[in-house]
Amino acid sequence: MNDPAYWLLPEGIEETLPPAAAQLERVRRELLDMYRVWGYELVIPPLIEYLESLLTGAGRELDLETFKLTDQLNGRLMGVRADITPQVARIDAHRLHREVPVRLCYMARVLRTRPQGLGGTRSPLQVGAELYGHAGIDSDVEIIRLMLATLKACGIGRVHVDLGHIDIFRCLVEAARLEPEIETELFELLQRKAVAEMSEQLAASGLGEIHRRRFLDLANLNGGAEVLLQARERFAGVDARIDAALDYLDDVAAAIRHEAPDVELCFDLGELRGYHYHSGLVYAAYVPGRGQELARGGRYDGIGKAFGRARPATGFSADLEGLLEAGAREDIAATARIYAPAEGNAALDDEIRRLRDEGRIVIRALCGQQGDARAMGCDQILVRHGDQWLLTEVN
Amino acid sequence: MNDPAYWLLPEGIEETLPPAAAQLERVRRELLDMYRVWGYELVIPPLIEYLESLLTGAGRELDLETFKLTDQLNGRLMGVRADITPQVARIDAHRLHREVPVRLCYMARVLRTRPQGLGGTRSPLQVGAELYGHAGIDSDVEIIRLMLATLKACGIGRVHVDLGHIDIFRCLVEAARLEPEIETELFELLQRKAVAEMSEQLAASGLGEIHRRRFLDLANLNGGAEVLLQARERFAGVDARIDAALDYLDDVAAAIRHEAPDVELCFDLGELRGYHYHSGLVYAAYVPGRGQELARGGRYDGIGKAFGRARPATGFSADLEGLLEAGAREDIAATARIYAPAEGNAALDDEIRRLRDEGRIVIRALCGQQGDARAMGCDQILVRHGDQWLLTEVN
Repeated sequence: MNDPAYWLLPEGIEETLPPAAAQLERVRRELLDMYRVWGYELVIPPLIEYLESLLTGAGRELDLETFKLTDQLNGRLMGVRADITPQVARIDAHRLHREVPVRLCYMARVLRTRPQGLGGTRSPLQVGAELYGHAGIDSDVEIIRLMLATLKACGIGRVHVDLGHIDIFRCLVEAARLEPEIETELFELLQRKAVAEMSEQLAASGLGEIHRRRFLDLANLNGGAEVLLQARERFAGVDARIDAALDYLDDVAAAIRHEAPDVELCFDLGELRGYHYHSGLVYAAYVPGRGQELARGGRYDGIGKAFGRARPATGFSADLEGLLEAGAREDIAATARIYAPAEGNAALDDEIRRLRDEGRIVIRALCGQQGDARAMGCDQILVRHGDQWLLTEVN
Repeated sequence: MNDPAYWLLPEGIEETLPPAAAQLERVRRELLDMYRVWGYELVIPPLIEYLESLLTGAGRELDLETFKLTDQLNGRLMGVRADITPQVARIDAHRLHREVPVRLCYMARVLRTRPQGLGGTRSPLQVGAELYGHAGIDSDVEIIRLMLATLKACGIGRVHVDLGHIDIFRCLVEAARLEPEIETELFELLQRKAVAEMSEQLAASGLGEIHRRRFLDLANLNGGAEVLLQARERFAGVDARIDAALDYLDDVAAAIRHEAPDVELCFDLGELRGYHYHSGLVYAAYVPGRGQELARGGRYDGIGKAFGRARPATGFSADLEGLLEAGAREDIAATARIYAPAEGNAALDDEIRRLRDEGRIVIRALCGQQGDARAMGCDQILVRHGDQWLLTEVN
């Protein structure tokens, strides 16, 4: 039992000790305060729900990531949430019943059966904001601004944002009349940007040359503003929704350039993360030198429909601990700690109360305790002078 | 899917919506700030751990309350924490390695397989403080004061505290040389205060009259200060540790009477909640008219030993949502909400930023959105006057 290995936490499960926990609490408050003044109301969705409610509209990906539990009270299957966004969509659809746009935010722990990437976490502290009831660029841009402000608050300087749009792949699939199995395979290869394999698979599919070419183009359409021009040319006349999607991307990019000129913008039209869930604009934020995205978001009007209330939706989310790891936020300056003697004395009690009311940390000595003021991490001590108690430096 | 029943949460699983979530966040901050100035450092233990680590020293009760999960990475059994105190004890023992007294606090969600009582929760928001490395009345009294301050911060006025001491039952069991099975049965009956059944069971046990009498006495020893006098008389000469326990209770009661004269104090010597876990003083706080305890605590030196580092420990915990339900805290006065037009305009952007920096909530209209300022819950609106943007009441 004294073997340290015995007390190891499961892979990808972390705990936060002092002083990091206090730092995390501080950032938590700053972010929630920011969301609040932007009009986002806090919600606290439950840690577990019945599985069908947790996975509605969310697709198989999330199912695999969700820990399952049996409800002993009735034998039904429950899941520990692996993502909070679908929970918040359910709250908008079935609890709040408002017709006007609704802005919600949250900050809570999720669990995943498998770590994300090497050394990845299985218990991210998910933070995010969602805007329901408005379809259009204004709501997407507001959410992107909030995502960028979140990164900035976490001390993340240079940010790179990749923009994509789910409709382009969807329209190409429709135009090519792809069988669902081939769509799924193609989708998976596109996600890995496995162009050579895609090429083989497309050749084997018996698909016409023109359709094959378009999917391969899509895989290569990532880069700067020129990508949108290339896409317009390559996909001209395929579907008016593709042109609309490209216009949308243009408009969003212009708005971000205006709002946040220092953000590096890229387009990645083959980026389909959350394909089964998202329904229009999708984006992810990165910092140079880290492959893993730091925050992501997009439209997911589809989920509202799955929840029985078709209502447009857009939002972003991130792992707060991941943001703090990537960011260069200064640590809190350690607050001075004051040591007070154990003796019972009304004047001393009053002085301790006064100091604590001022926000100062006062540690009361315990009769016969081990360790003096210095060992207790205190730099000042309360000393009696006549009938007064004064602060003295520990030396 | 539109059937509201479809979206019901599992029994005893709740979610917190606006504005209650904002209220909860406010109290959360107040409490953590209070613990901080008392010298308690925040820790954030993990939501899941390997089962053996989670249940060490905690007893079978907790095992039954713990949801089990299989780690897909290695097939080991994990549990979702049903109590945070054992996690914090592990952190003190195996992560912090300090010799001096350590003060820790936490505020996080736990899950339980079964609701506590009728209509009880299965996902309490557990808040608590723990003090390690000091055996003696000072640390117990500090923790009780912090528990009382927590109740007060939640708007709970009249508080009733029941004090007990595990050693008394332990010593009587030893003196009677009870078989473990009989001890377990007796313990269970004592918990239910089932005196008639106890009497039968004791009669059937073949135990001497003097021992039987003592256990029945124990079941009836609850009430005011007279209980300690009666106990001294009834248990005179049984074991010096019983006398020491009664002295300890006397001292703790005197300290509480001095610190918090308005708290109603009772003694309940048959109260053994957390028997397998606690090791000395135990207590619970109630309010008149509610049977369920609101907060509880006590010494649990035993758990340190189970963790391979025998270190004294004392702490309290409570369900913050339960406290707020019982308390008469005033709701936050709703902050005024300001509605700002959708148009892009640098002066407007500046004014919105300024207002938000002041902590005011500004909702930006979304182009073509449904609902006006009033429908969006705003009482003021930003209106242009020349090149200035001024606040105007919505009427």
